[in-house]
Amino acid sequence: MSATTGRPDAGPRATTGRRQFLNDRDDFVAEALEGFALAHPQLVTLHRDPDFLRRAPAGRRPGKVALVSGGGSGHEPLHTGFVGVGMLDAAVPGRVFTSPTALQVAAATRAANTGAGVLHVVKNYTGDVLNFRIAAEVATDDGVAVDQVLVEDDLATDPAVTGLDDGPGRRGTAAVVVVEKVCGAAAEEGAPLADLVALGRRTAKRSRTLSIALTAPTHPGERLPSFDLPEDEVEFGVGIHGERGVGRRAFSTAAELAEQLVTPVADSIEVQRGDAVLALVNGLGSTHPLELSVVFREVVRVLEARGVRVVRSLVGSHVTALDTAGVSVTLVPADDEVVRLWDAPVRTAALTW
Amino acid sequence: MSATTGRPDAGPRATTGRRQFLNDRDDFVAEALEGFALAHPQLVTLHRDPDFLRRAPAGRRPGKVALVSGGGSGHEPLHTGFVGVGMLDAAVPGRVFTSPTALQVAAATRAANTGAGVLHVVKNYTGDVLNFRIAAEVATDDGVAVDQVLVEDDLATDPAVTGLDDGPGRRGTAAVVVVEKVCGAAAEEGAPLADLVALGRRTAKRSRTLSIALTAPTHPGERLPSFDLPEDEVEFGVGIHGERGVGRRAFSTAAELAEQLVTPVADSIEVQRGDAVLALVNGLGSTHPLELSVVFREVVRVLEARGVRVVRSLVGSHVTALDTAGVSVTLVPADDEVVRLWDAPVRTAALTW
Repeated sequence: MSATTGRPDAGPRATTGRRQFLNDRDDFVAEALEGFALAHPQLVTLHRDPDFLRRAPAGRRPGKVALVSGGGSGHEPLHTGFVGVGMLDAAVPGRVFTSPTALQVAAATRAANTGAGVLHVVKNYTGDVLNFRIAAEVATDDGVAVDQVLVEDDLATDPAVTGLDDGPGRRGTAAVVVVEKVCGAAAEEGAPLADLVALGRRTAKRSRTLSIALTAPTHPGERLPSFDLPEDEVEFGVGIHGERGVGRRAFSTAAELAEQLVTPVADSIEVQRGDAVLALVNGLGSTHPLELSVVFREVVRVLEARGVRVVRSLVGSHVTALDTAGVSVTLVPADDEVVRLWDAPVRTAALTW
Repeated sequence: MSATTGRPDAGPRATTGRRQFLNDRDDFVAEALEGFALAHPQLVTLHRDPDFLRRAPAGRRPGKVALVSGGGSGHEPLHTGFVGVGMLDAAVPGRVFTSPTALQVAAATRAANTGAGVLHVVKNYTGDVLNFRIAAEVATDDGVAVDQVLVEDDLATDPAVTGLDDGPGRRGTAAVVVVEKVCGAAAEEGAPLADLVALGRRTAKRSRTLSIALTAPTHPGERLPSFDLPEDEVEFGVGIHGERGVGRRAFSTAAELAEQLVTPVADSIEVQRGDAVLALVNGLGSTHPLELSVVFREVVRVLEARGVRVVRSLVGSHVTALDTAGVSVTLVPADDEVVRLWDAPVRTAALTW
């Protein structure tokens, strides 16, 4: 007995294109921030003009180094969903796919600081790097100790791959979740700013990610995706802004696509037989949980064939690119320190354990 | 300074249609179950032939009434993501949008039972109702005490709305999360089966949901959605199986669409000025978290205008219909009992607090 319901229009049809639930595209992010804050009053407090989210009073820890991150919107639950105990003290959202202003970051930095200093966790994008740097200078002038961890995990944009030695270098993508989690845990334990910087840089340096998209995202208020793909190809090495990847490859099975992601990433972090890794399988927006589970199974299989054990994992859509149908795989060597800090308690909208 | 990346193809284009990360469509659900179990070894154990997921040994509580739910796949994280302490003891997935077999449900029921009986939480669909009933009969013959809560919250299919007095009645949709959460919490507290049945039925009876879709879902292995929409219309009153809704309405702002969902739902559960509700804003698959936050803000606004307070909420994609772009709004009167049980600790893949 089947509960399948009919699909009345069985024949081939063109698709309508994507639309969004929104009011005005210019107010989209601001309204979403309000909605997010209304849904999570125990976790976050919304600050307006300039806009940022900080921990709700109950989660604040005087004397703790504060973690502040941010970037363009459209990647939710990143970063707003990671504000809370064990991760961020403030998140600073820009407009969709656009860096927050230095003014926003500086205000969030001052608000988050409780005297122990502030760690900026920054994804490597030109606008983010510039605006966090200006904000750090402003906050430093105000007497706040600020330092930065730059996350630059996207293997597709590694100069060794692209040959662009004078480009912006590797983009920052899903590994930012790992950096925010381990540094957030260490900060709760009372680690000083210098130790957090060292921990964050060590973690970021050993993290690599690769992504594949089956569709490009559609921007709020638009109907068509930012690029099209032939139906027998995928976009390999995409970032999280709807930009083209580094090349087209044949659409194939989850097993073959996962292999194309895992093998270069595992090679690049030089994991050896017997090593343990933390693996993230991240949906880019509209990849269904069933698909992510299928991909994760393949990631485990490919790594096991190399003698590498997945000892911790995160499978879900945590760093999205609007409604992109795609997946990224991030690997981080899982030494005792990473595992301990990954396992530490966390209480945010998007991660809680 | 902006970090926006270029969109090289700015002109109008047709969309490719959707594809999925999968190997073989016949193995899709089975492989996804394996991947899910690999990602959550502390929470779930996969049973094969027949297939179901049960709590991992660490989460089992001898002497507790066991909660078993299930239904067609394609709705993840429902139900697999709700197996764990404070919610389900077992989840029984069928193929995509297809009821599990009675054999699966009976096996899960026997496995989950620790002597205190088993509560079946069933969404109102013909196949699910039939197969859970047969399974209950089989398990009862084996000496297991089994009873059922039927969830039938979809206002769009209410006989008072459709005029179909002899139809299957209201479909079961997102309110199942609330029933599983409150009954799961009460079961952890040691409530006997009869009390859980009464609690579940009371909760289900007062819960109503309405949904709107902007796109239909695309079935695994296919390229085109199950129905098309003119670009100026939305499908109102959709269920969670890609079926047509009860009618087409004009595409509009999030504010207007939210109003069209909230007002009939609030009317139907007869909340009065001064009442408190639990509100679920649920993404149907590829609705971005930013969109859900915008809709939630409107839901709060519409309810506040009626003098109704949203005292608890859940905003996210918890009951999906593959990659449908759509949203459902569920309201449940939030009396002290519902609030207390909603707030009780839960530790599952999809809900943890």
